[in-house]
Amino acid sequence: MAEQIKCGVLGLGRLGYWHAENLASQVRGAKLVNVADPFGDAAEKTAQKLGVDNWTKNPAEILEDPNIDAVIIATPTSTHVEMIKKAAENGKQIFVEKPLTQYVHEADEVIEAIKKHNVTCQVGFMRRFDPAYSEAKRRILAGDIGKPIYFKAVSRDPGAPPAEFIKNSGGIFLDMSIHDYDVARFLIGEEVTSASAHGNILMNDFMEEFGDVDQALTYLTFESGAAADIEGSRNAAYGYDIRGEVIGTEGSIIIGSLKHHDVTVLTKQGSTHDIVPAFPERFKDAYTIEMQHFIDCLRLGEKPIVTEYDGKVALEIAAAATEAFKTGKRVKLKTAAVKA
Amino acid sequence: MAEQIKCGVLGLGRLGYWHAENLASQVRGAKLVNVADPFGDAAEKTAQKLGVDNWTKNPAEILEDPNIDAVIIATPTSTHVEMIKKAAENGKQIFVEKPLTQYVHEADEVIEAIKKHNVTCQVGFMRRFDPAYSEAKRRILAGDIGKPIYFKAVSRDPGAPPAEFIKNSGGIFLDMSIHDYDVARFLIGEEVTSASAHGNILMNDFMEEFGDVDQALTYLTFESGAAADIEGSRNAAYGYDIRGEVIGTEGSIIIGSLKHHDVTVLTKQGSTHDIVPAFPERFKDAYTIEMQHFIDCLRLGEKPIVTEYDGKVALEIAAAATEAFKTGKRVKLKTAAVKA
Amino acid sequence: MAEQIKCGVLGLGRLGYWHAENLASQVRGAKLVNVADPFGDAAEKTAQKLGVDNWTKNPAEILEDPNIDAVIIATPTSTHVEMIKKAAENGKQIFVEKPLTQYVHEADEVIEAIKKHNVTCQVGFMRRFDPAYSEAKRRILAGDIGKPIYFKAVSRDPGAPPAEFIKNSGGIFLDMSIHDYDVARFLIGEEVTSASAHGNILMNDFMEEFGDVDQALTYLTFESGAAADIEGSRNAAYGYDIRGEVIGTEGSIIIGSLKHHDVTVLTKQGSTHDIVPAFPERFKDAYTIEMQHFIDCLRLGEKPIVTEYDGKVALEIAAAATEAFKTGKRVKLKTAAVKA
Amino acid sequence: MAEQIKCGVLGLGRLGYWHAENLASQVRGAKLVNVADPFGDAAEKTAQKLGVDNWTKNPAEILEDPNIDAVIIATPTSTHVEMIKKAAENGKQIFVEKPLTQYVHEADEVIEAIKKHNVTCQVGFMRRFDPAYSEAKRRILAGDIGKPIYFKAVSRDPGAPPAEFIKNSGGIFLDMSIHDYDVARFLIGEEVTSASAHGNILMNDFMEEFGDVDQALTYLTFESGAAADIEGSRNAAYGYDIRGEVIGTEGSIIIGSLKHHDVTVLTKQGSTHDIVPAFPERFKDAYTIEMQHFIDCLRLGEKPIVTEYDGKVALEIAAAATEAFKTGKRVKLKTAAVKA
Repeated sequence: MAEQIKCGVLGLGRLGYWHAENLASQVRGAKLVNVADPFGDAAEKTAQKLGVDNWTKNPAEILEDPNIDAVIIATPTSTHVEMIKKAAENGKQIFVEKPLTQYVHEADEVIEAIKKHNVTCQVGFMRRFDPAYSEAKRRILAGDIGKPIYFKAVSRDPGAPPAEFIKNSGGIFLDMSIHDYDVARFLIGEEVTSASAHGNILMNDFMEEFGDVDQALTYLTFESGAAADIEGSRNAAYGYDIRGEVIGTEGSIIIGSLKHHDVTVLTKQGSTHDIVPAFPERFKDAYTIEMQHFIDCLRLGEKPIVTEYDGKVALEIAAAATEAFKTGKRVKLKTAAVKA
Repeated sequence: MAEQIKCGVLGLGRLGYWHAENLASQVRGAKLVNVADPFGDAAEKTAQKLGVDNWTKNPAEILEDPNIDAVIIATPTSTHVEMIKKAAENGKQIFVEKPLTQYVHEADEVIEAIKKHNVTCQVGFMRRFDPAYSEAKRRILAGDIGKPIYFKAVSRDPGAPPAEFIKNSGGIFLDMSIHDYDVARFLIGEEVTSASAHGNILMNDFMEEFGDVDQALTYLTFESGAAADIEGSRNAAYGYDIRGEVIGTEGSIIIGSLKHHDVTVLTKQGSTHDIVPAFPERFKDAYTIEMQHFIDCLRLGEKPIVTEYDGKVALEIAAAATEAFKTGKRVKLKTAAVKA
Repeated sequence: MAEQIKCGVLGLGRLGYWHAENLASQVRGAKLVNVADPFGDAAEKTAQKLGVDNWTKNPAEILEDPNIDAVIIATPTSTHVEMIKKAAENGKQIFVEKPLTQYVHEADEVIEAIKKHNVTCQVGFMRRFDPAYSEAKRRILAGDIGKPIYFKAVSRDPGAPPAEFIKNSGGIFLDMSIHDYDVARFLIGEEVTSASAHGNILMNDFMEEFGDVDQALTYLTFESGAAADIEGSRNAAYGYDIRGEVIGTEGSIIIGSLKHHDVTVLTKQGSTHDIVPAFPERFKDAYTIEMQHFIDCLRLGEKPIVTEYDGKVALEIAAAATEAFKTGKRVKLKTAAVKA
Repeated sequence: MAEQIKCGVLGLGRLGYWHAENLASQVRGAKLVNVADPFGDAAEKTAQKLGVDNWTKNPAEILEDPNIDAVIIATPTSTHVEMIKKAAENGKQIFVEKPLTQYVHEADEVIEAIKKHNVTCQVGFMRRFDPAYSEAKRRILAGDIGKPIYFKAVSRDPGAPPAEFIKNSGGIFLDMSIHDYDVARFLIGEEVTSASAHGNILMNDFMEEFGDVDQALTYLTFESGAAADIEGSRNAAYGYDIRGEVIGTEGSIIIGSLKHHDVTVLTKQGSTHDIVPAFPERFKDAYTIEMQHFIDCLRLGEKPIVTEYDGKVALEIAAAATEAFKTGKRVKLKTAAVKA
């Protein structure tokens, strides 16, 4: 078996902390050696809590440390381009949270850097590693539903993020539906050729100021003529609701359910089970599994199943959907070039 | 196609009225020509409401009317023996509500009368006609679960009947679990060889006076070695709960669910659907289908799938379970003789 | 209680026959006195089978018969305008299958005729009477999910109809999604203000010849800013799949499920229940209940909950969706005028 | 926060290995310092795989090591009495797999030793820590179903263990239903006062030689008059099936379901999801959580929620059920004494 991968985590917000925690405990073959966060005492506290030997307020200390094999980039999206390029230049293996970068042209830059320095890059589309989504993929590959021809997705947050977040989020298509754009490609197994999009503000009037909406619908077409519709919503008063369907020529797969605890309470008011309240409860395992996949790939010299290319393509779809929403017109995509 | 079957209904309590209503409207090949009930104006009102030409307070008017082909006996159980014998003597075809009679020795009398006068008799075990139970039987016969080896049943009422009813009910094993005894024979496809039984009063202390319980459990064995456990309960505060499972050597069938309307409401409190509140909502279709089966059998000269013999066997099992409950001992059954 | 309503059925295709059967047996307060169909011996056979005294090949015999109170129009859509006008002129109460007419301008004509002759008209949007949809409406009115802000519908047929049908169907938006347009208005409780639409041929290449698609998506907006997305599909290899969701400010309602028999089979291959195979199994009760509603309204002098106006509005939405699909542009609706 | 608890694992069969793995990675506050197994190279291999510094073939090395704080006893049941007593004498904190001991009198011995040496003991009834069971307990304590009056349990293995295992298992009541006896006490919140039991061989004739059965039913009564029925089975050809229900005076709780992956496949054959195949998939989390509870209790100086007393009581119920099964008579329990 290969050596342990020495890792540093950059950015200790909620996701960065989870990645650090997973690397410190659950992930086999990894050793968390340093954590960085410029704000307050986040790095120091994390290091203490997780038993990590080093911490710093300066990401460069990790990016330039010759003792570190791989970096996990969980800093704000606007910094991804710089972080990834520096990491590549220093020969670090890279795990970067989604989206890969804020803009498509930045994605080209980081792809070039990654190629030039011959490092590995995995993008944090954790749904591919969720046991339900990966089982769906397995069933599709097994031919259980014939050829996939339609994908339908519902992603609903239990409420809107604060204005501060919405302001810098890039809009619902980039911030939220991007997960389903990636999953659509993953499950249909083809590239997207066009995007149409609609959206409205149903509950959160404050979003108007930022040109954003709390309810979005994207219609995608694929190379073979397959299609997809993807709903993104900030309006699920009842909980966190992530579901998908893949319709094939011989059957269909439904992914996900609302059930949280495996307990049902029967009273005069009816039969009730609780609903997954938020994304940690829904995707906790997926975050662990994606990080294990990253480490396993590094140790085995294999390519992750979701790379910087997938990061860029999802970004292009999100940009096309955003444009389609703003112009009211269908926007064509030229993703074929990416794969070349 | 044969002539229409001219029917008379005896006893217009809830079930009798339903049978009358079904015969007056939904059942093909039947004509309801008379209804009888000794109490108040039940017969007159029913005749008016359903557009029936005749009504009477005297069952004998129907039992002796040469113009009537078939009678539906929905009078109190204690009168069944007399009603069935008179009906048979007058050459009437007979549908009788469960239980066939109150005592096993009475069952022998009516079986003799039915045989002697060569009439048809169907007993009102409507569950055999419920779409879920009959689909389960079909799947078993299709071999989908291999050989059936165990039956498990839950029958829970949403509350206890009044003391007046309990007093004359014959006890929970005879009044309630008898449905599952019949279904057990139907689904396992074999005769019962022994019964053990347990029971306790969990909520309704008034039952102690009548030697009855509100929670009962029967354990049955079958000829081939198969077994069953059957729960009967008056304590389902949440609704009417009828479920069954047939375990086979290669799989299992689960029958029934709690869902009433095909609607689920999601709120912060969870995901809720309403529960079947009582037996009419659960078995309305079954009552219609069983009556259609009775009429179809008469017109086609065929034997119903559930006859006086099944009525007697279920009664014997109920008697054995009651004895087992009272003595704390396993009681053996000699049903083989019945079939001869 | 009022007199029985004497009814005649025009057109004895599948739906016309069902309506006739329901009127002949299940519907209280109605008497089926004549049935008409120009093709072969459909009318004669139906009359014999259902015990109807008269039959004819000529609809005019029914439309002009002074003895008939109400007509059920289940003839081809292209004949609706003529049939409804004649019926109104003859003072007949009218039940007409959906769509009300083929074109919006025809709808105006029939609305005028109905108004002029002061007759009642109910349109066959049976989903409003389906126990699941009407329970959903009840729960919304009860405030269980707050204010409805989004409607999501899936309607999938288990396969495409033959080319002959598609040719004259008016396209998937008019033929299929129109049910969901009506339900969307019913459940959201507002008028639609715009329609956008997308569609592709995923499996049935023959549809290209007719400018139709087998997969359609409509995005609607409503007066208050609410929105909806509605999928119509001919590609559900697995069965007949009708589902809906109403998202409200405080919760959500899911309508419908795929379960057919209330039986689940467990084997090494997993836990399996069968799926509703086609629309009769799904909506049989709804057809009976809508006809009962029509007859009840006539007897009580009340207005049906779904009239010629609803028929016209649904037609307008379907026309707008079709135009939106063809032009790739959002089409605004002016339905407010209709209500005036 | 307290020091890390230094642990040694005795017995590296499947469960012992899991406990070792959990202690080596997931459990916070624990350090696995030694592992013991007398057979082959199990200890050496486990130490290498999990990165444990020491291994041994001799349990005494761990039991007598002053450097070790706590031992996890996962050796054969027949050795528990000796292991626990030695551990207590050496002042070790104890986690012992269920059952506590093979015989009730041995349970008394170990309870005395534990008391004398003032050590903590947790018994491996992991179901109490399963998220579904613990949520059920929480809901009961919250009063959501009123007062619990009945418990119903189904525990079905996907097949019978080999003859070699059955021979030494103590029978189905001790080996299998003991989990539900403990859960029944946990959820009802009372002591058991009597046990009745039934059982048959439905599929595995070889069990006759050992006086064991593959299908068992236990009926329990509780101090307040509550009751329970508990099915244990080796005959679930379809998978691993663990379910429970707690009926209360105001509602009921259903615990567990059969669903494995959160994916449903729809085909012409129906709607299918896969079933939990075996106990690791069902209870993996529970094993981790129970070990975390053990370590947390040691660090916080608190008493585990399931101790040697619970281990003894469950053993007494299993012994009573076994006797009831053999004699055909109800067996009373005197568990009140235990608590004193």
